[in-house]
Amino acid sequence: MHDLLLKNVRPLGGATTDILIRDGRIAQTGSLAAQPGIAVEDGGNAIAWPGLIDAHTHIDKTTWGMGWHENNREATLRSRIDFERENRLAIGLDPHRQSMRHAIGLAAHGATHIRSHVDIDTTHGLRLVEGVQETREKLKGIIDIEIVAFPQSGVVCMPGTVELLDEALSNGCEVLGGLDPCGIDRDPKGQLDVLFQLALKHGVDIDIHLHEAGELGAFSMELIFERVRANGMQGHFAISHAFCLGMNDYLRVGKLMEQIAELDIAILTTGAPSATVPSVKRLKEHGIRIGAGCDGIRDTWGPWGQPDMIDRARIIGMKNGVRSDDDLKFMLEIVSQGGAEVMHLDGYGLDIGDHADFTLLAGETPANAVVEITPPPLVVKGGQVVARNGVCIIEMP
Amino acid sequence: MHDLLLKNVRPLGGATTDILIRDGRIAQTGSLAAQPGIAVEDGGNAIAWPGLIDAHTHIDKTTWGMGWHENNREATLRSRIDFERENRLAIGLDPHRQSMRHAIGLAAHGATHIRSHVDIDTTHGLRLVEGVQETREKLKGIIDIEIVAFPQSGVVCMPGTVELLDEALSNGCEVLGGLDPCGIDRDPKGQLDVLFQLALKHGVDIDIHLHEAGELGAFSMELIFERVRANGMQGHFAISHAFCLGMNDYLRVGKLMEQIAELDIAILTTGAPSATVPSVKRLKEHGIRIGAGCDGIRDTWGPWGQPDMIDRARIIGMKNGVRSDDDLKFMLEIVSQGGAEVMHLDGYGLDIGDHADFTLLAGETPANAVVEITPPPLVVKGGQVVARNGVCIIEMP
Repeated sequence: MHDLLLKNVRPLGGATTDILIRDGRIAQTGSLAAQPGIAVEDGGNAIAWPGLIDAHTHIDKTTWGMGWHENNREATLRSRIDFERENRLAIGLDPHRQSMRHAIGLAAHGATHIRSHVDIDTTHGLRLVEGVQETREKLKGIIDIEIVAFPQSGVVCMPGTVELLDEALSNGCEVLGGLDPCGIDRDPKGQLDVLFQLALKHGVDIDIHLHEAGELGAFSMELIFERVRANGMQGHFAISHAFCLGMNDYLRVGKLMEQIAELDIAILTTGAPSATVPSVKRLKEHGIRIGAGCDGIRDTWGPWGQPDMIDRARIIGMKNGVRSDDDLKFMLEIVSQGGAEVMHLDGYGLDIGDHADFTLLAGETPANAVVEITPPPLVVKGGQVVARNGVCIIEMP
Repeated sequence: MHDLLLKNVRPLGGATTDILIRDGRIAQTGSLAAQPGIAVEDGGNAIAWPGLIDAHTHIDKTTWGMGWHENNREATLRSRIDFERENRLAIGLDPHRQSMRHAIGLAAHGATHIRSHVDIDTTHGLRLVEGVQETREKLKGIIDIEIVAFPQSGVVCMPGTVELLDEALSNGCEVLGGLDPCGIDRDPKGQLDVLFQLALKHGVDIDIHLHEAGELGAFSMELIFERVRANGMQGHFAISHAFCLGMNDYLRVGKLMEQIAELDIAILTTGAPSATVPSVKRLKEHGIRIGAGCDGIRDTWGPWGQPDMIDRARIIGMKNGVRSDDDLKFMLEIVSQGGAEVMHLDGYGLDIGDHADFTLLAGETPANAVVEITPPPLVVKGGQVVARNGVCIIEMP
């Protein structure tokens, strides 16, 4: 655990102050004198912001740092899943090396926490999870990685998957994933009953991908609502993507959001370029917890994205028609505090006693920081400087 | 006019070759030996692509390089127009300095041509145009700037504007602009009749902003179709934004596109984050000329954008749900050849005899180049190297 005196920063864009870190936690703020044995950094009057959080990503999937992956393939969700499962190793998608690259890139750009879904299927068993677990170990103290046991190829339609998920949750995966109970598994009741049973057995949260659009997605959501209520999982369920909340029926979406709020279900958005997405402002009006993630970046699914949560805040902001400073600041909150709320992080923030996990931001104001492409001048994790000007202290392999 | 031997590049992403430039034009390709008196550059096997074209922008508006402009104002189109007109000079938006910054930024990122709308109104007269004309003179040989005489505050609703437009077209503005005949001028027949009359008088093209959504925009388009046909302006009319073509009525949009194609009207898109936009793929299927622009960047209207047409290709691509390599390459074509077709540029391209206006691109393939954030390694204008690695030979003032 590290000590550090950081001079001359503006927490959350407010007044300039110094921050003293002791044993990896924020110990004191104000105008502080240097102390023997404690390193001093000058923050250059930059904004200090709690560490950015990529709360929905797939660090086992990216081709980052590899040759360009040409992609003119058929574009159904199912075909993308199958292509990836069948070809990922042949293409050279080493789960450890690629997750190192993705995670180091995120840390270099101000992130201190990741929730990554990692594929579990009957082709690869738990090998992809093991690769990411190796990354998690190597990056301890640089960036925290939470792993979602993610049945990318389906749950009940791929016999043997449930047993693998069960094993993964006994072996270090913190959250149970899932996806499209109708669209992928073709058996919504079957899939959801199994997922809830597994989650209750292991005492873990569920975070399910829901790409299903319009009324199909709404139907799956309703099945989820019933089970969250029946199993007392209020506050412990997250829906990623939730494209159906982007449907063009204002009243229907309002009713769904009311139930999401009542059951304290969290929503995770990526501002997906090629889909309808939920309005983050409307989710906020309903008091719903909202996190965000960069999802897959430059993978076999598609070419977009960077390992950079400020870049993602821009994508979500543009997708949501955001223009005002207040709304831009909200984008920054979604990729930081929002993720912390979804992941139930303790001691997250810039208050005395909080973990010293934060980033300095380029830009005069929080709104300015969202549109600024200059990388964060300094990133601090547990009181240690882990990146400067977009370069992490650990090199990408 | 410049001579240059550029070794080792891949025109349009094809086979590696050398390019000999004589008197500012492409004279020869193939494996070429150095010649006495001709400078040699090594292209490092990068893709060579015709110069990028920002075919819809407002280089008199950006706050680039100034302090952050806070913006939590009321968000109607009319209020944005009025705020800007009334405050631009007080804010410090010097039209010459700011247009220099914008244009130099574009050149640094691979652009060789700009079509910029420049505000003409009864508050500023032609002073903003004059500021941009000064920029055009100073940047001769670096980037070409075409100026659209743009009645941002309205035509018939602001008496005195028509006379100013008339004067501007006699004094170096090449194209006549306009906007929202219903939404802004509240007199579609009145505005359009005046604009067509002015364009015919000066023998110039018209390029009109059409933000009007849905059926209102479709109505304005139909009034335009009637006048293009009646006045024989086929091939000489462009509609910028055309948000109504993003309306959710497949058949209606198809009928509008058929007429646009028949009248050879060009469409200019910016992939506007906060609006419905026309599908560029569908426009292409109809054989319609499509250019693109970065529009206003970081101005009093909104915070988004960079002086960078590759960044804009990404925004348009994401907005259009693009994923495949073929579609990504099409995004690159829109921000280059597409703009040239809209602006009727002669000698644009990489063939023998064409102007030596091109950029090298980072990335293995054209698709890769669209998602690569590394700036262009080299930009050539009239055979002169005008930028390297995102830095123009002329500094921003």
